[in-house]
Amino acid sequence: MNTDELAELGQQLRVDSVRAAAAAGSGHPTSSMSAADLMAVLLAHHLRYDFERPEHPANDRFVLSKGHASPLLYAAYKAAGVLDDGELLTFRRLGSRLEGHPTPRRLPWVETATGSLGQGLPVGVGIALVGKRLEHTDSRVWVLCGDSEMAEGSVWEAAETAAYENLDNLTAIVDVNRLGQRGPTRHGHDLDAYARRFQAFGWHTIEVDGHDVEAIDRAYEEALATTGVPTAILARTLKGRGVAAVEDREGMHGKPLPDPEEAVAELGGPRDIRVSVSEPPASAVPRPDSTGVLQLPRYAEGDEVATRDAFGKALAALGTARGDVVALDGEVGDSTRTEFFAKEHPERFFECYIAEQQMVASATGMAARGWLPYASTFAAFLTRAFDFVRMASISGSGLNLVGSHAGVAIGQDGPSQMGLEDLAMFRTVYGSTVLYPCDANQTARLVAAMADLDGIRYLRTSRGKSPVIYGPDEEFHAGGSKVLRSGDDDRLTVVAAGVTVHEALAAADRLAQEGIRIRVIDLYSVKPVDVDTLRAAGAETGCLVTVEDHHEEGGLGDAVLEAFTDGRPVPRLVRLAVRTMPGSAEPDEQLHAAGIDAVSIATTARRLAQGAEIE
Amino acid sequence: MNTDELAELGQQLRVDSVRAAAAAGSGHPTSSMSAADLMAVLLAHHLRYDFERPEHPANDRFVLSKGHASPLLYAAYKAAGVLDDGELLTFRRLGSRLEGHPTPRRLPWVETATGSLGQGLPVGVGIALVGKRLEHTDSRVWVLCGDSEMAEGSVWEAAETAAYENLDNLTAIVDVNRLGQRGPTRHGHDLDAYARRFQAFGWHTIEVDGHDVEAIDRAYEEALATTGVPTAILARTLKGRGVAAVEDREGMHGKPLPDPEEAVAELGGPRDIRVSVSEPPASAVPRPDSTGVLQLPRYAEGDEVATRDAFGKALAALGTARGDVVALDGEVGDSTRTEFFAKEHPERFFECYIAEQQMVASATGMAARGWLPYASTFAAFLTRAFDFVRMASISGSGLNLVGSHAGVAIGQDGPSQMGLEDLAMFRTVYGSTVLYPCDANQTARLVAAMADLDGIRYLRTSRGKSPVIYGPDEEFHAGGSKVLRSGDDDRLTVVAAGVTVHEALAAADRLAQEGIRIRVIDLYSVKPVDVDTLRAAGAETGCLVTVEDHHEEGGLGDAVLEAFTDGRPVPRLVRLAVRTMPGSAEPDEQLHAAGIDAVSIATTARRLAQGAEIE
Repeated sequence: MNTDELAELGQQLRVDSVRAAAAAGSGHPTSSMSAADLMAVLLAHHLRYDFERPEHPANDRFVLSKGHASPLLYAAYKAAGVLDDGELLTFRRLGSRLEGHPTPRRLPWVETATGSLGQGLPVGVGIALVGKRLEHTDSRVWVLCGDSEMAEGSVWEAAETAAYENLDNLTAIVDVNRLGQRGPTRHGHDLDAYARRFQAFGWHTIEVDGHDVEAIDRAYEEALATTGVPTAILARTLKGRGVAAVEDREGMHGKPLPDPEEAVAELGGPRDIRVSVSEPPASAVPRPDSTGVLQLPRYAEGDEVATRDAFGKALAALGTARGDVVALDGEVGDSTRTEFFAKEHPERFFECYIAEQQMVASATGMAARGWLPYASTFAAFLTRAFDFVRMASISGSGLNLVGSHAGVAIGQDGPSQMGLEDLAMFRTVYGSTVLYPCDANQTARLVAAMADLDGIRYLRTSRGKSPVIYGPDEEFHAGGSKVLRSGDDDRLTVVAAGVTVHEALAAADRLAQEGIRIRVIDLYSVKPVDVDTLRAAGAETGCLVTVEDHHEEGGLGDAVLEAFTDGRPVPRLVRLAVRTMPGSAEPDEQLHAAGIDAVSIATTARRLAQGAEIE
Repeated sequence: MNTDELAELGQQLRVDSVRAAAAAGSGHPTSSMSAADLMAVLLAHHLRYDFERPEHPANDRFVLSKGHASPLLYAAYKAAGVLDDGELLTFRRLGSRLEGHPTPRRLPWVETATGSLGQGLPVGVGIALVGKRLEHTDSRVWVLCGDSEMAEGSVWEAAETAAYENLDNLTAIVDVNRLGQRGPTRHGHDLDAYARRFQAFGWHTIEVDGHDVEAIDRAYEEALATTGVPTAILARTLKGRGVAAVEDREGMHGKPLPDPEEAVAELGGPRDIRVSVSEPPASAVPRPDSTGVLQLPRYAEGDEVATRDAFGKALAALGTARGDVVALDGEVGDSTRTEFFAKEHPERFFECYIAEQQMVASATGMAARGWLPYASTFAAFLTRAFDFVRMASISGSGLNLVGSHAGVAIGQDGPSQMGLEDLAMFRTVYGSTVLYPCDANQTARLVAAMADLDGIRYLRTSRGKSPVIYGPDEEFHAGGSKVLRSGDDDRLTVVAAGVTVHEALAAADRLAQEGIRIRVIDLYSVKPVDVDTLRAAGAETGCLVTVEDHHEEGGLGDAVLEAFTDGRPVPRLVRLAVRTMPGSAEPDEQLHAAGIDAVSIATTARRLAQGAEIE
């Protein structure tokens, strides 16, 4: 396309953005209009993408980090011929593929769900890492960012990672339109302010007039020609560009234009320019070697092994069996034990340093390209990435997240290092699976089982050693449980998971000597729960006592309810959980202080067996 | 102190760090030893602090962002004479004030709990904002950071904020010891790499040999003399400095020295140097004007008002009544309605731009200085700051956090903007309060009530308008509820909050016409819940149906259980919640699609009234 044609295409994208938002009665046309010329030139001249084969490894990837500018994206899809004008005007309606913020659940060309700002660039880094370090294609990743989102720290985690990893296949296009939602940004049109920051992190930068299509074209050429480092294009633009009533004006964010018809006329009326997007080059992508044979570690019953160790060894074995497994860690691989994987499969291990948001975003980007990521840090520090996990669930990403150092059982390091909120966090994520093994063989089996599940899968591991209680051939699955003590005269059921399983067993043995029989369930699948086993226990013993090394809200105690919320009779319930703020102490002291050790369980069971309520 | 004395003090801090960790059998002596000279010079020459009056507004503030170096902090307290050698050796023991990572719950001189890296500098920014914009003291804030934590994006949110706010009362001291937990950092001893980044964000930087006490002294002088911008001191240090067996060696993180006695000898043996820390200058801190009279907005029953509007107006009124109230927002004040406060009290409003972690950290810093922060953004985006909320709860901070745009009821913007995990997130936080009002008068009252609670208080507001159902003089409190429909022949109880209260009332009225009476409870206090009212409803109606605009895990449906986990009989339970991934649609369509509207409630109630279970 020549300059005039590119400019015309930009106007068409504006017109269609205005029309889509007008039809919806909501949306972000002005945020679309500022970036229309940037999008037009990219689509017509530089993007290489086979819309018929969105999974093609050699495709370039486009990420709309400023996800609220979805009208622009959909207008571009229309220009590319993959959706028609009728569908464009279904924007934001019930059942439409064209959501307020784009999601890959609905549209195959969307790489990742955006709409929480500051996430597109981090996920783009993950996608670019795949191209650079795993698939060795010359696929490029283009991320269109807003200027407001530069305030998010996650953008700078991405900037740091991208430069350190020499991601010259990544271009960030920053639409510096000067205006955020409620007013001017910190830096307005000071392109240098952004350029200085990207340069300091090691990026090549280009400053450009974002409405000069020739200059934009040259900037993209320069980005493509830059080697060794990623490029950031800082584009000076005007929000609402092209329509005087809204152009560069405050108070015009996130709403249809006041007079859409007049605006369309001012923009030169509707057009129907069709862009022929370039095909990607042919590309063969080798997966790394894999044996196809999974040889999980096997542990002898009675051995003392930390579940984090079993996780690390199982993950290394899974990596040997499957070439698509990748591992990521937040600079604590010697604690989480991903170091075992890193040693055996260094080419598929990604050290993310202490940047948990980027770690989860990288995993999301890798999953988007068909890889199977396991990302791990302390359970407590996964809370840092909650918004990224939430957005990954909206994307429908298949992520395995593993949190070590669960609960007060870690001991002396104190509450900042204790995962006490992680079960609640991961349970409430849409479509998630939450697993909490108590021994090494169970852990190994669950690490393998996670691989084949959908959505966000969370595994919680423990710091300290615990006895192996299951044989290496015992089977476990999401939604399962194990009844470890059971008899006809059980007075109540203790439901435990992880470290409390061992406490519950000790309590049961002690109580048995006193003639009080209790049932013990290892509820290693916290979501989904084993509904049938819990219902049977409820019906047969009349009382469930849950014991968990987690705060009392949102964890195991709440999870058992899943079995009883259909209106059926509910057994009596008692909850033992961490109700105080722990300090430093030895692991055994911690469990006792929290009231979740064998002594506490036995005390509670005795009182309940005598018919008392628990205050 | 002269140079030799300062160096001796540094050695003493090392010796005491080694001794404390050896006594504990765990801890981080090598991370303490790298920063010992930095700490010695600060303590002896520059810190102005009255240990007898930690609340003194003119005190300098010291934040140990690298919280794992707690032995160094406690060794400094010993040198300052505020704890003795016996207590030093209780480090990390059950009941000791000297936790693995320092917390203000235990020690009055600790400003904020640290141990999750990348949080000390953001909280330090909040403290410095108080000195600069609210109290106008010449108190200085010193934050000792690790180099590993520079990878956290939150550090760059802090860097951006501090420079933009001209916080020349803030000095970041970065202990560049080259080694993280599991190996070298990205930038090793490349001080320039860090300096470039800080400079790009607008900071003054100083590079220094972190074991040259004279150079350190000059660097602190230069930081104190720098006006208009914050200063970052990049100090080249060696981890484990002074003990050959560990100095600058990998694999020595987070463990006692292999031979502590030999190490102490190598460091020149124990010393008992006592530092006379400078007193702060006299200072009068005026609180801004306040009337002392709270005139909350009053709404007429039947009016249609969004609870976010009522929040904004109530907050503005509270700011008029109380001079200690400050408000913070993540660049969405026109949506959350903190703009009403900003307009009336601009000097106490803090625009945090799109940086939710920094927003919560700033609030934490302000609370540490005795101010009463209300921080607000979309409920969905508060998930970005979960780790900061978690750490604030460990600090015992009194924060008011307000999340708008709750649930599918927001409509067309789609799932990225919908708070569907926030109730679970805030419920699981230790000692938190979770409030979810359904009308404007209730909201206003709860905004005022929050102010006087302890710990983390969360208020959830809605985007759309809803009818006012309570009079302006109705009273509400944490732990309360309102029974809105009740009779002797209630067949079941619907427990609702926020938007679903109105749906429940509509369902009740429809069912009443059919002769089916149901009880309706407005459970506006989701944590703690009104135990007595729920128990009475359970006993009298036999069945609780919870209805919430939130994912089914961790929210209202789980919260009602609090009333029934003491072993007493539990009523039957049915849960209506958001179980599918929403797309874009109108609010009414969303509520219906999620199965939480009046029609869905009525359908469920009819089936239950007929004795059926719900699948």
